[in-house]
Amino acid sequence: MPPTVFIVSDGTGITAETFAHSILSQFDQKFRLVRVPFVDSMDKAYVTVDKINDAAVQEGRRPIVFTTLVDSQSNEVVKRSNALVLDMFQTFVEPLEQELDVKSSHAMGRVHQNADTEEYKNRIEAINFSLAHDDGQSNRNLVDADVILVGVSRSGKTPTSLYLAMQYGVKAANYPLIPDDFERGKLPTPLIEHRSKLFGLSIDAQRLSEIRNERRPGSKYAAIENCRYEINEAETMMRREGIKWLSSTHKSIEEIATTILQEIRMDKPPY
Amino acid sequence: MPPTVFIVSDGTGITAETFAHSILSQFDQKFRLVRVPFVDSMDKAYVTVDKINDAAVQEGRRPIVFTTLVDSQSNEVVKRSNALVLDMFQTFVEPLEQELDVKSSHAMGRVHQNADTEEYKNRIEAINFSLAHDDGQSNRNLVDADVILVGVSRSGKTPTSLYLAMQYGVKAANYPLIPDDFERGKLPTPLIEHRSKLFGLSIDAQRLSEIRNERRPGSKYAAIENCRYEINEAETMMRREGIKWLSSTHKSIEEIATTILQEIRMDKPPY
Repeated sequence: MPPTVFIVSDGTGITAETFAHSILSQFDQKFRLVRVPFVDSMDKAYVTVDKINDAAVQEGRRPIVFTTLVDSQSNEVVKRSNALVLDMFQTFVEPLEQELDVKSSHAMGRVHQNADTEEYKNRIEAINFSLAHDDGQSNRNLVDADVILVGVSRSGKTPTSLYLAMQYGVKAANYPLIPDDFERGKLPTPLIEHRSKLFGLSIDAQRLSEIRNERRPGSKYAAIENCRYEINEAETMMRREGIKWLSSTHKSIEEIATTILQEIRMDKPPY
Repeated sequence: MPPTVFIVSDGTGITAETFAHSILSQFDQKFRLVRVPFVDSMDKAYVTVDKINDAAVQEGRRPIVFTTLVDSQSNEVVKRSNALVLDMFQTFVEPLEQELDVKSSHAMGRVHQNADTEEYKNRIEAINFSLAHDDGQSNRNLVDADVILVGVSRSGKTPTSLYLAMQYGVKAANYPLIPDDFERGKLPTPLIEHRSKLFGLSIDAQRLSEIRNERRPGSKYAAIENCRYEINEAETMMRREGIKWLSSTHKSIEEIATTILQEIRMDKPPY
C-alpha cells in the first residue's frame, strides 16, 4: 500500500496540496494523499491527530504530514502526532521574520483572497469576461481585453483563456481563425484594431486531427489534410501580421499561460 | 520600496509562487514578486543569479529568493546569490528521502502533468464538459456529470464549476433554479433523475442584488425583493428535496470547491 500523506491546513489546503504533490512527484512511487482542510480550532487539531495516529496503527508505519497551520498551538498539537511532520509554513516564516526583522501575523485563512475584496471581484469579472468572449462569441468590449488568443479551432484557446482569468484575473478573450479568414487572407475584422493584444496558439497537425476526430469523427474538419492546411494558413497569417505565437502541442495550460504572461508582461501574482 | 521576492523554478513556477504568496501573506507588508520560470539549464541559472544580484545592488538590500530547482548543480548556483535563499524543494525532499529510504529522481518539470498524459486529457475533457453544461445549456450527457450545481442566477455556480474542472478534472455541470421552477414547485425536470448528484449554492440577498445590479441595473431581476423571493424559494426547494447546499456569500471559489469535494467524496489530488 502506498504511504499515506496528510495535508493539514486551516484553509482549503489546496495550495499546500499542490505543492506537496510537486515534491512527492520527485519520488518514483505512489502516495495516498488525504487533504484535511479547515482545521481552524484546537478541537479540530486533536481530531486530526487522532486520524493521523489511526492511520499509523492501521498501516503499520507512520504517515507523512505536511502542515501549514499558522496557529502555533494547533501546529504544536499536530506536530506531536506519530508521523514525519513537515511544517511548510514555519520552516519559511521563521527565516523571513529574521530577515525582515518583524513578527508574522499568524492570521488564519490568508492564503486565498477574501471573497469580499476588490481583487476577488476583479477575478470573477475576468472569468465572466473570458466566458463571454470565448470563441469569438462577442466583439463587444474587446477593448477591455488584456489579451486575445487566436488560432484554429481546438488549438487550446478556451482552456488557456479560462485559466488566465481564473488564476490571474487576466481578461483573456479568444477568437478562432477559420477557413474564411484564410481565403480572404486577412485577420478577422474585429481583431484588426486590437492587433497589439493578439497572441497565437498553434498545434501539431497530427495532434489536432486526433482532437477534432474525438469531436466529429471522420469529418472533413478533422481530416489530417485539412488540419495541415488550416495550421499552415494560420501560421502564415500570424507571421505576416507579426503576431507572437507558440505551439500548444506538448504544453500544459500552466506552461502556455506562463509564456503568454511573460510576453504580454502581465506577470501578476496568482490568486 | 517593498522587498523583491524572486521565485525561481525549472517549470512554470506557478505552484511555488502561489505557495510563496501564501507565506508572505503572513507579513503585514507588501512584496514585489518576480517569477523566473523555465530555469532548466546552468546558463539560465547564471542569468538568474545576475538578475538577483543586480536587484540587491539597485535596492540596497538583498532580495528574498524561493527556489524549487530540482537540478542540484543549478540549485547550488542560485544559492550562492546575494539573497536570502529559501529552498522549497530540497528542504522537504531530504527528510522524505530519509523517511522512505530512497533517493528522489531530481527530474525536472514533474510539477505539472505532462500534456500528453491521459490525466491531462481527462482534465481538458472536464473543462469542455463544464463549459458545455454551463447554466443548463445542455441536458445531454448529464449522466456523465460528477456533480451538478444548482442555485439561482448569479449565486456562483459558473466559476465554481469551471474551477472544479480546471483544478480537479471534475465534470461539474450547473443548472439554474428560476422563477418558473418555484411556481411549479418542482425541480427542473432534467435534474430529477440526477438528484443524488445535485449540490446547491445559495447567497445572501443583499449581495445577490448588488451582483445582479452590476449586470442589469435597476431591473426587477436585480431588485432586493425579487432576490429575497428567489433565494427563499430556492432554499425551500433544496431543503424539501434533500439537496445539500452552502452559502457562497463570503466564500472564495477555492473554499466552495473544497467543501463540495468533501461532500461528493471526490477528494482527488489537484493538478
